[in-house]
Amino acid sequence: VLGSAAELADLRTLAAGADVVTFDHEGVPPEVLATLAADGVPLAPSPEAQLMAQDKLHARVELGRLGFPVPPFVHARTPRDVAAFAAEHGWPVVGKLPRGGYDGRGVAVLDGAPGAAELLRDAPAGIVVEPHLALDRELAVLVARSTSGEAVAYPVVETVQRDGMCREILFPAPIDPLLADEAHALALSIAEEIGATGVLAVELFVSEDRLLVNELALRPHNSGHWTIEGASTSQFEQHLRAVLGWPLGDTDPTAPAVATINVVGPPDGTDPATRVAVALGVPGARVHLYGKAARPGRKLGHVTVRGDDPAAARARALQAAALLEGRDS
Amino acid sequence: VLGSAAELADLRTLAAGADVVTFDHEGVPPEVLATLAADGVPLAPSPEAQLMAQDKLHARVELGRLGFPVPPFVHARTPRDVAAFAAEHGWPVVGKLPRGGYDGRGVAVLDGAPGAAELLRDAPAGIVVEPHLALDRELAVLVARSTSGEAVAYPVVETVQRDGMCREILFPAPIDPLLADEAHALALSIAEEIGATGVLAVELFVSEDRLLVNELALRPHNSGHWTIEGASTSQFEQHLRAVLGWPLGDTDPTAPAVATINVVGPPDGTDPATRVAVALGVPGARVHLYGKAARPGRKLGHVTVRGDDPAAARARALQAAALLEGRDS
Repeated sequence: VLGSAAELADLRTLAAGADVVTFDHEGVPPEVLATLAADGVPLAPSPEAQLMAQDKLHARVELGRLGFPVPPFVHARTPRDVAAFAAEHGWPVVGKLPRGGYDGRGVAVLDGAPGAAELLRDAPAGIVVEPHLALDRELAVLVARSTSGEAVAYPVVETVQRDGMCREILFPAPIDPLLADEAHALALSIAEEIGATGVLAVELFVSEDRLLVNELALRPHNSGHWTIEGASTSQFEQHLRAVLGWPLGDTDPTAPAVATINVVGPPDGTDPATRVAVALGVPGARVHLYGKAARPGRKLGHVTVRGDDPAAARARALQAAALLEGRDS
Repeated sequence: VLGSAAELADLRTLAAGADVVTFDHEGVPPEVLATLAADGVPLAPSPEAQLMAQDKLHARVELGRLGFPVPPFVHARTPRDVAAFAAEHGWPVVGKLPRGGYDGRGVAVLDGAPGAAELLRDAPAGIVVEPHLALDRELAVLVARSTSGEAVAYPVVETVQRDGMCREILFPAPIDPLLADEAHALALSIAEEIGATGVLAVELFVSEDRLLVNELALRPHNSGHWTIEGASTSQFEQHLRAVLGWPLGDTDPTAPAVATINVVGPPDGTDPATRVAVALGVPGARVHLYGKAARPGRKLGHVTVRGDDPAAARARALQAAALLEGRDS
């Protein structure tokens, strides 16, 4: 079925006779999902759960209401709302479009009212504003929850962002095991409370040793690509098991250390695919390119390296990614 | 490109502009391969090397000529030829069609001249006849040889046949490390001598503690499916690296023990795909079904289980395969 993810007629064709309909992005408009659900289409996750990934404002409000730790925030409709929040928390603040942002798009560090006005031009219904937090680090926890209610969690990973985009996913996360346990419990509890089905990626801030929920994704997610080689069951298979109500797979890691580095289109516009043979010369490098058109700054693939030592695995993955991006190191 | 693997015109369409043309079966007739090679199509492996997998008689003669250990054999054109060989080696003997056999087809244990006559009816040019050897066990060694000449070997596995069909592939093979070294050296030497490019599966008999070369396959092979999860680089990726002249990948195992059990269509004709959810409940079971129509006795998929203990991994893989085949154990 070829069609648009925003066209009800196309989606009805897709859903006809399907045991279950699931997602690999958040691009189906909530109102279209609601109509499909009213048709009786078995959607996993449900439109209500999916909205937690589609709308950052909704997610903050709901997670706060459910008692989960989220950063301080305000729903700002005007530059004056932003300034009032900044008066309490200090400039700069971070403004986020509730919908449609990714890889740093739709997010801006705001130094004052003019910047706020600019971002608000794209968001007639207002933006999410939060403090520019001092982060110890960022983490991600992937969990899976089946339509049967069974749930499992993968080991916690550290995610490293540059220029607003996730660049590194590192297992094991270099954190206190108690904090890892807390992150697992938090992610499993969110999955349960919001009724997630399929995999759920929970992106966490660590600020002053406390966990704060940043964003959710109710689908296989970049922060889980390490599981393709690095865990007994990849997030893609796990997602299908979960939405089909099949038994969930083991989530144990396949090596003591797994490093995944994203491959980003280089400034000169060249395609990393032209350099794959060189990158494959790095011992242990597992190269994944997504077949997307190369554009500077666009996420085009990733490299995973398994090993016994986290620093060595990361160094090799960084080397292979650099070769793909046409850099020496 | 949709077409027939035996039609020169279809294959010319496929090959037009290709950097390299390779194979996942031996079904392209040798004369068609020769024509493509004469056209200048870059074939990997070459038609000459491929013939070692296409024609059992040619392989026996050539391997013997090159000094590799093969079972005693004769090229029998008549029942009298078979009887003369049996007079020397004893009945029963094993008769094999030179071309077209697989999974036990085209191979027969011959008790006397009438059986030989029957097999010879399918082989006007004669059959291969060898003794019915007492085997200690069977082994397989997967090697890869690049168009650049680089070559690597995977760990030796034991293969277990039932009803003429490979049913189990077990790593590690329970053999003396010196015999494993010998098997590696033998397989790498064969790859070099016959000019193989891509992966080469060497099937070996162990008889009276000696290695004998049984068959070759110059493509990803059933005996190498364990590498999908069980080795750093799967045989499929390795094959592509090798025929493209790219650096070869690591061949080290990803676990101390890896067991692969083939899934065969059960006698009642039911499809293992209808039982996949149950099989996925076996911890660690990685289920692969090939999407082929279910027929009794047809190889339809396989299950791989990794683990620390060979017996435990094998038991789990056998359990999952049995569930897929609709058996309790």
